[in-house]
Amino acid sequence: MKLMARSDGRSPDQLRPVTITRNWLAHAEGSVLVEFGGTKVLCAATVESGVPRWRKGSGLGWVTAEYAMLPRATNTRGDRESVRGKIGGRTHEISRLIGRSLRACVDYKALGENSIILDCDVLQADGGTRTAAITGAYVALADAVGWMRKKRMCPGDPLVDSVAAVSVGIVGTTPLLDLCYVEDVKAETDMNVVMTGRGAFVEVQGTAEGAPFDRNILDELLDLAAAGCAELTELQKTVLA
Amino acid sequence: MKLMARSDGRSPDQLRPVTITRNWLAHAEGSVLVEFGGTKVLCAATVESGVPRWRKGSGLGWVTAEYAMLPRATNTRGDRESVRGKIGGRTHEISRLIGRSLRACVDYKALGENSIILDCDVLQADGGTRTAAITGAYVALADAVGWMRKKRMCPGDPLVDSVAAVSVGIVGTTPLLDLCYVEDVKAETDMNVVMTGRGAFVEVQGTAEGAPFDRNILDELLDLAAAGCAELTELQKTVLA
Amino acid sequence: MKLMARSDGRSPDQLRPVTITRNWLAHAEGSVLVEFGGTKVLCAATVESGVPRWRKGSGLGWVTAEYAMLPRATNTRGDRESVRGKIGGRTHEISRLIGRSLRACVDYKALGENSIILDCDVLQADGGTRTAAITGAYVALADAVGWMRKKRMCPGDPLVDSVAAVSVGIVGTTPLLDLCYVEDVKAETDMNVVMTGRGAFVEVQGTAEGAPFDRNILDELLDLAAAGCAELTELQKTVLA
Amino acid sequence: MKLMARSDGRSPDQLRPVTITRNWLAHAEGSVLVEFGGTKVLCAATVESGVPRWRKGSGLGWVTAEYAMLPRATNTRGDRESVRGKIGGRTHEISRLIGRSLRACVDYKALGENSIILDCDVLQADGGTRTAAITGAYVALADAVGWMRKKRMCPGDPLVDSVAAVSVGIVGTTPLLDLCYVEDVKAETDMNVVMTGRGAFVEVQGTAEGAPFDRNILDELLDLAAAGCAELTELQKTVLA
Amino acid sequence: MKLMARSDGRSPDQLRPVTITRNWLAHAEGSVLVEFGGTKVLCAATVESGVPRWRKGSGLGWVTAEYAMLPRATNTRGDRESVRGKIGGRTHEISRLIGRSLRACVDYKALGENSIILDCDVLQADGGTRTAAITGAYVALADAVGWMRKKRMCPGDPLVDSVAAVSVGIVGTTPLLDLCYVEDVKAETDMNVVMTGRGAFVEVQGTAEGAPFDRNILDELLDLAAAGCAELTELQKTVLA
Amino acid sequence: MKLMARSDGRSPDQLRPVTITRNWLAHAEGSVLVEFGGTKVLCAATVESGVPRWRKGSGLGWVTAEYAMLPRATNTRGDRESVRGKIGGRTHEISRLIGRSLRACVDYKALGENSIILDCDVLQADGGTRTAAITGAYVALADAVGWMRKKRMCPGDPLVDSVAAVSVGIVGTTPLLDLCYVEDVKAETDMNVVMTGRGAFVEVQGTAEGAPFDRNILDELLDLAAAGCAELTELQKTVLA
Repeated sequence: MKLMARSDGRSPDQLRPVTITRNWLAHAEGSVLVEFGGTKVLCAATVESGVPRWRKGSGLGWVTAEYAMLPRATNTRGDRESVRGKIGGRTHEISRLIGRSLRACVDYKALGENSIILDCDVLQADGGTRTAAITGAYVALADAVGWMRKKRMCPGDPLVDSVAAVSVGIVGTTPLLDLCYVEDVKAETDMNVVMTGRGAFVEVQGTAEGAPFDRNILDELLDLAAAGCAELTELQKTVLA
Repeated sequence: MKLMARSDGRSPDQLRPVTITRNWLAHAEGSVLVEFGGTKVLCAATVESGVPRWRKGSGLGWVTAEYAMLPRATNTRGDRESVRGKIGGRTHEISRLIGRSLRACVDYKALGENSIILDCDVLQADGGTRTAAITGAYVALADAVGWMRKKRMCPGDPLVDSVAAVSVGIVGTTPLLDLCYVEDVKAETDMNVVMTGRGAFVEVQGTAEGAPFDRNILDELLDLAAAGCAELTELQKTVLA
Repeated sequence: MKLMARSDGRSPDQLRPVTITRNWLAHAEGSVLVEFGGTKVLCAATVESGVPRWRKGSGLGWVTAEYAMLPRATNTRGDRESVRGKIGGRTHEISRLIGRSLRACVDYKALGENSIILDCDVLQADGGTRTAAITGAYVALADAVGWMRKKRMCPGDPLVDSVAAVSVGIVGTTPLLDLCYVEDVKAETDMNVVMTGRGAFVEVQGTAEGAPFDRNILDELLDLAAAGCAELTELQKTVLA
Repeated sequence: MKLMARSDGRSPDQLRPVTITRNWLAHAEGSVLVEFGGTKVLCAATVESGVPRWRKGSGLGWVTAEYAMLPRATNTRGDRESVRGKIGGRTHEISRLIGRSLRACVDYKALGENSIILDCDVLQADGGTRTAAITGAYVALADAVGWMRKKRMCPGDPLVDSVAAVSVGIVGTTPLLDLCYVEDVKAETDMNVVMTGRGAFVEVQGTAEGAPFDRNILDELLDLAAAGCAELTELQKTVLA
Repeated sequence: MKLMARSDGRSPDQLRPVTITRNWLAHAEGSVLVEFGGTKVLCAATVESGVPRWRKGSGLGWVTAEYAMLPRATNTRGDRESVRGKIGGRTHEISRLIGRSLRACVDYKALGENSIILDCDVLQADGGTRTAAITGAYVALADAVGWMRKKRMCPGDPLVDSVAAVSVGIVGTTPLLDLCYVEDVKAETDMNVVMTGRGAFVEVQGTAEGAPFDRNILDELLDLAAAGCAELTELQKTVLA
Repeated sequence: MKLMARSDGRSPDQLRPVTITRNWLAHAEGSVLVEFGGTKVLCAATVESGVPRWRKGSGLGWVTAEYAMLPRATNTRGDRESVRGKIGGRTHEISRLIGRSLRACVDYKALGENSIILDCDVLQADGGTRTAAITGAYVALADAVGWMRKKRMCPGDPLVDSVAAVSVGIVGTTPLLDLCYVEDVKAETDMNVVMTGRGAFVEVQGTAEGAPFDRNILDELLDLAAAGCAELTELQKTVLA
């Protein structure tokens, strides 16, 4: 493993400064502004009684997510998906990923026939928007669940674990944790890893952007991600304490 | 005129606390977080060289705006327009209003064949989102123009005046300045007024939500709005100084 | 105030020839072909028992409107909104304005849980299509209400007043009533005013297309509009007698 | 063949009163209000220089059509296709039929690289809207061609023939010409026939709505349609004279 | 009638080799791969209990169809309609034709309140896709009905006849049966004919692509089509035996 | 690791019978019907000269893919995405995955400014449609490249490796290779792995559908997938020989 100087001076296994600000919004049942360096995502949790039609009468709850980017979150302005009249493939894919990830720590039965919707809107993007969104959305979800429990809306405690996520990648030949945008663009391999607070995997999505990668590299990236997720889990605990 | 206690203790002719934070975003050529009390709008100005097709070769620039609300800006969650696949009438109407309002202070010739797009995204809504958006977007526009002039992108100074906006309305029988959401809901008449820094009218949009209104009331509302806009103009000057 | 010869020889405070032909369609519960000079709008009122979902069980009725233009109503052909697959901002805005305006003269309780939809389709456009539409739609609405009352569909008389509308504007420096297309294009300021038969304001929408306007001009325009609306109200009465 | 009394007293082989009013619109290069009894269709012909992309540089012109119905053309109100965001199958089918029919009488080479668009908007529907549209659109097309020839826009005479259309059908066991709505609903077999002025077939579209039909019935219907189209051709000649 | 050598050596009144393979799919209640020469259409029949809303409570069943082409069924790739976000006019028209044709042999009462949907997807196109689809879909429909009857889902036998379809056309001056793509492109007149097993007409759709056609030609084409449909009916019987 | 009997009698590390039929379509430059047990995917490769706009003038080629399912590929009929008017998230996600996977074995420079589009249409689904699609699409791609090279369309050999894919998962506690539908539904963890012919990873997408999984399970699944991909690579070689 060759060392490479990172643009912001971090060591390869170092997260960017991460801040999670709770109750950023006045109306939402849970809301968080999460920042991974220059990446800022506003996560709002909405509680609705009732579940989608296909789940009615099951006694089980539901958790889902919608991800989007403000047009000027990025360096050059992107067209609004509302103006184009349809949601792009990337947006769909990330929304589905966030929803799946959060559902991994939810006990549907304890939630009762209620829904929680996590809106993750990227206000500013500098790499890792989906992992920041998952990490922040978990905190918003926890706050929304707290709100529900205070109102005695759910039969039990719907949170069976916590969830955090981080990106890892190979730039040059160096495995790096938590890629910022300029690193992401140069990465040969890019991997997003979602883990529970207890250290189990929820999602592993690795993609060879450049050269295909071998098993050793995959192992190194998984180690790096596991350490990063553990650190984020600690931060979530501190923030929610 | 009967006096009525306002929910937040303001006098009838008093604005809510207004804050305008410049450079809220890292990438945009101008960006502002504007707050009128609990209403928070993120205004991002994007400079693009070139103009829409119908204006090419004219030597003239263009300024336009897009307004949107995050799904959980409001008390109950609204569906995303990108998910519904089309933009609603209200969104269209306000986007057009903001664009028209800002164009009132722009000299297209001095701008040259460049475009400035103002994205106004409501992060939190508590009444007056369109007037906050116009007032904030002007500051983002001024910053974008400053950025262009530093880069010598435009042949002259495209800003010939400033623009600010405020809502006024009749609640009960009392004319009120800068309605918050609970006042807006109860208003018999609702008026949005856009004015230049020099005190001329750009837009006057008055609507009888309840009983139709007579000329006296219209006059009172216009007086109230003119004073409010003058105050906002001062604030814009201070912030941009 | 400088005098200016109008293209059709009218004095500044003169309406174009206005004709309102009732029962233009065989099927609609009320229907009117309204002509303001070369502007021809077909207004059809449809009565439906029942109200939109959000109003069910309230005991209150609803009135709404949809505005559209035939592709060759104008000088150059416009694409159909059905072909483009979405409704443009201008169409949305005018549909909403017409609906709001007509609702100002309706007693929802007396209407009972019934809906009236006003379809205003511009067959030929020569300026002032929205004001002609409102003025004609009121007559179609009155006929539809007459039809309902004959059928004893509504608990009371839902029409508490009448509604008419006219445009005014500044061309050069002259305030003009009821602008035709060539005047509208040259107008510095353009204002649409909707008033009740009793002379109160329902909507005031003034826009500085060119230079912003001061309070004196606003006052002159309102005077002109009030006189024009009064004249249209008389015509509506005559036609409905 | 059993005789059946028609609701409007016509004999089985009798057309409804047909009127064709030229120059109904001020802006279009050709325009016609065509009435087949209670069916009223506004046909507007628009001339555009240039042709669709796939035909550029061919030296050949193009003729196309768009058909639509106003929402209250019919007995109960139909939703606007612009509001639903897509064009229905029936609308598509009829638009294509009208375009194909009119192209049968056009010499593309003589038209030069110009396009003529026929907008056929049904203002009131009482059966036979597509056949009325074709019959009227031909006259609007002829007027648009006249306009072009006066302007010397086309290299030759693009009209090599005329085109008219009529519906026929079996009600009970009686073949009837030019079905009105109540007859159309009851028809076992419904056929639309488009013919040239010289008496050749352009389109034959027969559909068994009820029982399938045999060759004898098909022959009877074709005889009836041929006579009807000949009559309409005469009327077109008279109107254009 | 001049003789013309066909590209594949057939005589003018000869069908292409037709094969109908039943049970091509594992899941559908009826499924057929139908081949008319190089044209391959996969027809899947889906049985659903219940009928569309407008037919509920009538005691009557419903049969409908959807036609589509895979993007590379043709010589050059076509865009997917799902990607374009709307269904084209041709697709709509053919789907409606297939549905209408099949309904001609169905007794809705005997079907009970059940629906059968025929999906006809063109895997490879070489002319006559709609007629192959109808001919194959009938067999899939018959299998689906067999499946229902085994399950005692329908009160009677819903199939009162069979349905087959074939194209005919004039190439040069020769009437030809069952046009392949290269013939279809050259055809002056193109006709699709749908007939019942008993020899009655369900649909006759003739179009003059080039010169309009006279009654003699129409008669010749109908004779040719009737013979072709009779042959296809025999094949359907054999296959279903 | 506990052993579990598979529904089709396979051992845990056994692929379903895989068949790859080349040249299934007459028109496409490469086409394959790939079957993984009951899963049948038709893969068509289309060669187009030129590249998307954003890549023009780069000298580099492009490879992309579109995935879709016929409505009755599955046990219960799904609505067509063309009818719904938009592409679902799952479809988008899989299309993107297939495109990315195939690009991993392509040398854009050797391809020249040409595009290859892989259409993967699922005719019948029984689990593993995306992995079957990738495996089959590679063969169609190889055939299309062969076609191009024969025509001397590309400057070099664009295929630098091959690509195959397989699914693996945990059912109960047993890691299984190449899950069929009934296994997929029961899987706790589901992973799709795309590998090059040389044995490097292109994509690793693991998802905990039930309980989150630990590193040991991840390792076992990767071993299983690597063996499966190697077997598929051999089959591709045999088929292409």
